[in-house]
Order: sequence, then structure tokens, then C-alpha cells
Amino acid sequence: MRDAYHEELDSIGEDLVEMARLVGSAIGRATTAMLDADLRLAESVIAADEKVDTLQHELEARAIALLARQQPVATDLRIVVTSLRMSADLERAGDLAQHVAKQARLRFPQSPVPHDLHTTLLEMGQLAQRLMAKAAEVIITKDVELALELEQDDDEMDLLHRTLFQHLMDDRWKHGIETAVDVTLLGRYYERFADHAVSVAKRVVYLVTGEHADEIQTAEAPVEGA
Amino acid sequence: MRDAYHEELDSIGEDLVEMARLVGSAIGRATTAMLDADLRLAESVIAADEKVDTLQHELEARAIALLARQQPVATDLRIVVTSLRMSADLERAGDLAQHVAKQARLRFPQSPVPHDLHTTLLEMGQLAQRLMAKAAEVIITKDVELALELEQDDDEMDLLHRTLFQHLMDDRWKHGIETAVDVTLLGRYYERFADHAVSVAKRVVYLVTGEHADEIQTAEAPVEGA
Repeated sequence: MRDAYHEELDSIGEDLVEMARLVGSAIGRATTAMLDADLRLAESVIAADEKVDTLQHELEARAIALLARQQPVATDLRIVVTSLRMSADLERAGDLAQHVAKQARLRFPQSPVPHDLHTTLLEMGQLAQRLMAKAAEVIITKDVELALELEQDDDEMDLLHRTLFQHLMDDRWKHGIETAVDVTLLGRYYERFADHAVSVAKRVVYLVTGEHADEIQTAEAPVEGA
Repeated sequence: MRDAYHEELDSIGEDLVEMARLVGSAIGRATTAMLDADLRLAESVIAADEKVDTLQHELEARAIALLARQQPVATDLRIVVTSLRMSADLERAGDLAQHVAKQARLRFPQSPVPHDLHTTLLEMGQLAQRLMAKAAEVIITKDVELALELEQDDDEMDLLHRTLFQHLMDDRWKHGIETAVDVTLLGRYYERFADHAVSVAKRVVYLVTGEHADEIQTAEAPVEGA
């Protein structure tokens, strides 16, 4: 049987998984709301982000209480500190899903995205959701191999991001400046969302190996393709 | 005389101030590099970000060592945990300054920004630098009044951001899509940079009062003006 102390540590882990699930669901629904110009869905994504913020505050309070009461050292200490970092990533990813939903709300009853870009944006949304599901899996399993896989998946996001920019820069672009601005921001939100999923996975690598994933392999999605 | 323990706590604070200074300088120089199309300056900003990343890693290692060895409670514990968060904000602000410099490098020998927007971007750069200088001041003085001021200063950034979007959306915009995309991204970088400076200040409020600044007054710069 586990003692109260390790139960508390476990429940911090469960909170992280719950945050990742909420945020993964949020980006999926925000994408649908944006492509289908579904105002009610957009509103529900926007409202649901509060739950993520609340979870993060609770996790933070719980982690600090645990540090004060139990004074963990070595691995346990690393778990608590890294959990704080991961919760910040997940909270921010939630904000980005909310930004996508807000863009949908802003342009309602239109979609902010022209039809010829729907497929690319749908792929970005689905990939973002898969990355976050994988990050949740990594939190649960602490599988370093799986964690490092996320960086490769993220290359796919960069590729989609580049495709988006190619459309924007094409001389035949006929959707005007406002839509170009919307698409630029949306692309950035998905890219950053993916970065946070990767970051969560990297932090698990740090937890397990004691080394920053950067020291194993590096990644920062460049926006220089813009 | 201060004991070794409090000296260590102080030196974490000094690292944060140093990070804020480096990052404030970086956004100032990145702005100049972008407006003047100064490739050497852009390269120096890009290279200098490594120093910020190194400082963050050192601070993190030092904070974790301090937690393990000294097992602080109450206020001291909050200082260490909050410092970790602040260092993450500052590291990210450094990335954003680097992104501005990379945009300058990408468009060299042109400036990514057309002349009629130089004043607005210059103001955004200067404001970003002032906000970070104020954040450094807040870390040093722990002045809650000053910390709350940053949220008002951030309103000024939102206003400049809106001005940028008004230019973009103006029917007379004649700079094409590529420049519109560049300006959209640059606007976003400055806005997020300012958010991180505000966040640092808010965390000092949390340290001093034990309450999240959000509970006193709220802010998240909306991009919905886009």
C-alpha cells in the first residue's frame, strides 16, 4: 500500500493528466468551431478554459504544501518541481486553444479560414490534439522513447505551418489582408500549442534521466519560414 | 550578517534581475536591428540569448539544490518556487526578443517593417524595454504598487498593438501579404514579451501578498482586435 505522501505525489500526476486531457479536447473542439463557424462550440471552449486554470492553481497550491510538509529530496523533489513546470505548459496550451476559439467567435458567422486552407488547418488541429494525447500518455507511462517521439511529430507541425505560409505567400492569394492576419495568428497558435506538448514530454525526460532533453536532441520550431 | 542560506536566496534574486536586464537589453537591440535592418546587431541579439538560457538552467539547478539541502518552508519556499516561475517567464521573453531579431535577419537587407509603421514598432520596442526594466525594479524592491502599475503600462502595449492592426486592415495597405504576415508576427512577439514582464511583476505580488494578482486585478492582452 502507498503512504499518504506518495498518494499526494500521484494525485499531482493525475491532475497533470487531467489538464492534458482537457487541453487536448479544447484544441480539437476549437478547431471544429473555427472550421464550422460554430459559435456555441467556440463559446464552450472559451468557458471551459477556466477549469484548466483552476486545476493549475490547485496543483500549484498542493505542490507547495507538499514541499513544505514533506520536504522531499532527490527524485521526489524533482517530480514536484517539474510538475509545476508542466502545469504551466498545459495552462498556456489551454490559453492557445482558447485563442483559436476566440478567433472563431470574432469572425462568426464566417469561418476565419478560407475553404482552400481548411484541410491544412484541420490537420494542424488533429495533430495538436494527438500531440497532447501523447504528452498525457508520457506523463502516465514516463516512457522516454515515446517522449522523444514527440519532437519528430512536431516536425510534422512545422511542415504544416510552412504549407500555411506557402499559401499566404502565393501570388494567387485572394483572401485579403484580414484573413492573412487571421491565418498567421492561427498558425502561430497551433505551432505554440505543439511546442508546449513537446515541452511537457521533454520535462518527463528530465525527470527520468536527470538530463534536459535538449542535451539529447534539440528542437524549437522556427517561424522563420514566414 | 546574512547566513549562507539567505545569501543563496539572494543570489537567486540577483540572477533574476540579471536575466531581466539581459532580456530588456535584447528587446531594445532587436528593435533597432529590425528597424535599421542591421544584420550584425540582429546576429548579436540571436547569439546573446544563449546567456539567458544558461542563466535559467543555473538558477533552476541552484533552486532545486537549495530546496533539497535547506528545505525552506513558508515565505522562503514561496520565494524559491516563484523564482522558478519568473525565470521561465524571463527565458521566454528572451526567446521573443530573439524572434524579433530573427525576423530582421530573415528580411535583411530590407527591414521587415514598412516606414509608415516604424514609429509604432519603435514605441512597442521601447515600451517593452521599459516594462522589463520595471519588472527588474519590482524584483529588487518587491514594490506591490509598482508591480500593479505594469498592468496599466501593458494597456499601452495593447493600444499600440491595435494601432498596428488598424494599419494592416486599412484599405490603403499597400505593402502586400508578406509584410502583413511579418507585422502580425512582430506585433504578437511584442505583446507576448510585455505579458511576460507583467507576469513577473504579478508573481512578485503573489510572493508579497500570498494572493494571485489576478484576484486583485485581471489582464490578458486580447488579440481579438486582429
